[in-house]
Amino acid sequence: MARSGAADLDLTSSPATSTDAPTTAAPAGPWEVLARTDADVPAAVECELAACLAERRGDAAAVAPEVDGAVEVLERFVLGSGKRIRPTFAWWGWRGAGGDPAAAGAVLRAVSALELLQACALVHDDYIDASDTRRGRPTVHVAFAARHRDEGWSGEAERFGAAAAILLGDLALAWADDMVQGSGLDAAALARAGEPWRAMRTEVLCGQYLDVLAQARADTTSASAMRVNRFKTAAYTVERPLHIGAALAGADAALTDAYRRFGADVGVAFQLRDDMLGVFGDPEVTGKPAGDDLREGKRTLLVALALERARERGDAAAAEVVTGALGDADLDDAGVDRVRQVLVDLGATDAVEDRIATLTTSALDALAGADVAEPAAAMLVDLADRATRRRR
Amino acid sequence: MARSGAADLDLTSSPATSTDAPTTAAPAGPWEVLARTDADVPAAVECELAACLAERRGDAAAVAPEVDGAVEVLERFVLGSGKRIRPTFAWWGWRGAGGDPAAAGAVLRAVSALELLQACALVHDDYIDASDTRRGRPTVHVAFAARHRDEGWSGEAERFGAAAAILLGDLALAWADDMVQGSGLDAAALARAGEPWRAMRTEVLCGQYLDVLAQARADTTSASAMRVNRFKTAAYTVERPLHIGAALAGADAALTDAYRRFGADVGVAFQLRDDMLGVFGDPEVTGKPAGDDLREGKRTLLVALALERARERGDAAAAEVVTGALGDADLDDAGVDRVRQVLVDLGATDAVEDRIATLTTSALDALAGADVAEPAAAMLVDLADRATRRRR
Repeated sequence: MARSGAADLDLTSSPATSTDAPTTAAPAGPWEVLARTDADVPAAVECELAACLAERRGDAAAVAPEVDGAVEVLERFVLGSGKRIRPTFAWWGWRGAGGDPAAAGAVLRAVSALELLQACALVHDDYIDASDTRRGRPTVHVAFAARHRDEGWSGEAERFGAAAAILLGDLALAWADDMVQGSGLDAAALARAGEPWRAMRTEVLCGQYLDVLAQARADTTSASAMRVNRFKTAAYTVERPLHIGAALAGADAALTDAYRRFGADVGVAFQLRDDMLGVFGDPEVTGKPAGDDLREGKRTLLVALALERARERGDAAAAEVVTGALGDADLDDAGVDRVRQVLVDLGATDAVEDRIATLTTSALDALAGADVAEPAAAMLVDLADRATRRRR
Repeated sequence: MARSGAADLDLTSSPATSTDAPTTAAPAGPWEVLARTDADVPAAVECELAACLAERRGDAAAVAPEVDGAVEVLERFVLGSGKRIRPTFAWWGWRGAGGDPAAAGAVLRAVSALELLQACALVHDDYIDASDTRRGRPTVHVAFAARHRDEGWSGEAERFGAAAAILLGDLALAWADDMVQGSGLDAAALARAGEPWRAMRTEVLCGQYLDVLAQARADTTSASAMRVNRFKTAAYTVERPLHIGAALAGADAALTDAYRRFGADVGVAFQLRDDMLGVFGDPEVTGKPAGDDLREGKRTLLVALALERARERGDAAAAEVVTGALGDADLDDAGVDRVRQVLVDLGATDAVEDRIATLTTSALDALAGADVAEPAAAMLVDLADRATRRRR
């Protein structure tokens, strides 16, 4: 269920920008924060997350030293990986709406909180999906189960791993709210950002439930896939982060509306590109085995369109190639090739590429018609381009 | 792990007060809210929760009608049961600190949010503990697993139940924050209450992790039991709710400190009473089979003290009676009687009763030395009395 392709999008603002790990420096003035964040949003976000988690680890250690060890696992999970796509969209949304530079530090902290929400979503999702690894490392529930076994503790190791993952995810969710509330935003900005922040959390959790429900019901319709794309990915990844940025800046309804249309379309296109890469991506570039989405049984629009077209044509053999491969953990390369051929022959790949192109065009149109300040306007166009045309 | 004895404490302000289900009425003025809530805090809280959840169900249904059915399960879980102990302490904490009556409606909504946090804790806890029932009804993960089986859906029913319980718990946690932020409190009150609200969420989640860890390590020391009592129960159930009430009212440091000492002591005493009832309670009164805490393997202070005393005396046979019973799901009444006798003989029951008495005295002393407005002062004394002397 977890669609982590997002993690592979490079969001630093230019290839020339240093991506060295940031170090905590002396308190910076708002203009310095602005310049530093503009130059490299992910690095600036990383710095805020490190500071926030150091403080939260202190709170947890005050309860008991043993908890500190568990929170350290969460800290390692959050820091040092992930491309900070959500804070990046929120930041440029705020910049494009002409947010007051004096609030730069508070805004940076507030948008960084999106990564703690994401940590909750990933940790809980990995357990729900029974995923063993993420970014090449053991998932949180697997790591805690392993610790239980290594220490020879009582009870079932898997249950201990589940408990730790659920509680650490809960902490990340609670701390996301705390990070926003403690960001230093003034009361009016907090109130404005509250609406999209609330909507986003409800949408992503409901979207996750829809995804789980679609899997249980073996619902492979394109309508179901698009609904999950809409709420679990697009709203949560692009639309609402931009909305939050707009709200923080006090943007007017026209700009907010343009951002949301841009975000919903880019977000869905981003997911569709991810779906394509999950089947046709070059393992050398994506870092994931070819066809892994098929083995994991992901119910993507690509697969849904193929099955719908096979049904329309009465091509039971083609449908069987696809359904037989879906969720087959032992699917070999020849099997993946057969599915690819069927997806092409049925026109599903072309249909998805068309959809990506249409969504990208309508997204850019929405943005072009809005009054977005530079350099944010150019950055958002660039982000849309990279999100929808990327090879990894 | 879930210590739900709290649910059985009757917190309505007097036996004469009607406990009929509240109905949503025309918008009430602050004095009316004040009078209505003073007369029956749980009923007023129920009313706020019903209104909040109706709104949240609307948000969820806007994502997809299927989600509404899931959120309805959460709504039924929250409404119609539970004695609202946390909002009750928070309310009287606010009243006792002389909170501005004009804010009564906003304060009532904010303290009602504690019940959504509690819903998350219980739903996740029940899954972590693999509990099948709560208050005589199937737990959330069990209910969703049953639905999966009834509908003949794909995949494992238990995994579906787990996913639904985790995601609904997450929704409740997010909505708890939303309910506070949307309560109508002014920015200053929100900021003041933020500190204990943040601390409480971290404490209860860390306390839950400590409980899980103690179980894994088979840690039956009294130090471990008291640490879990301190953070998982006392801080979360009494101390921080009172602290939140004080913060909402803008109480000074002296009153806040007195509340916290009172709350920490009453909270621990409350848990110790719960522990006693879990072994010695009358099933006719508690509604739970006698000795259920033993069958569930709860690592209470009562058990810890018994084992420590048995070790000091070199009484391996007595220790074996206790450890053999702990976690034995098939423990019969004769077995429970044997444990009871050992707990009495080792002096563990007397020691726990002494501890309850000492804590209650120190709690009441802390309160007596503080400047608490009536009728809150009398209500808090009464609540302390009922929490520590109750028979169910």
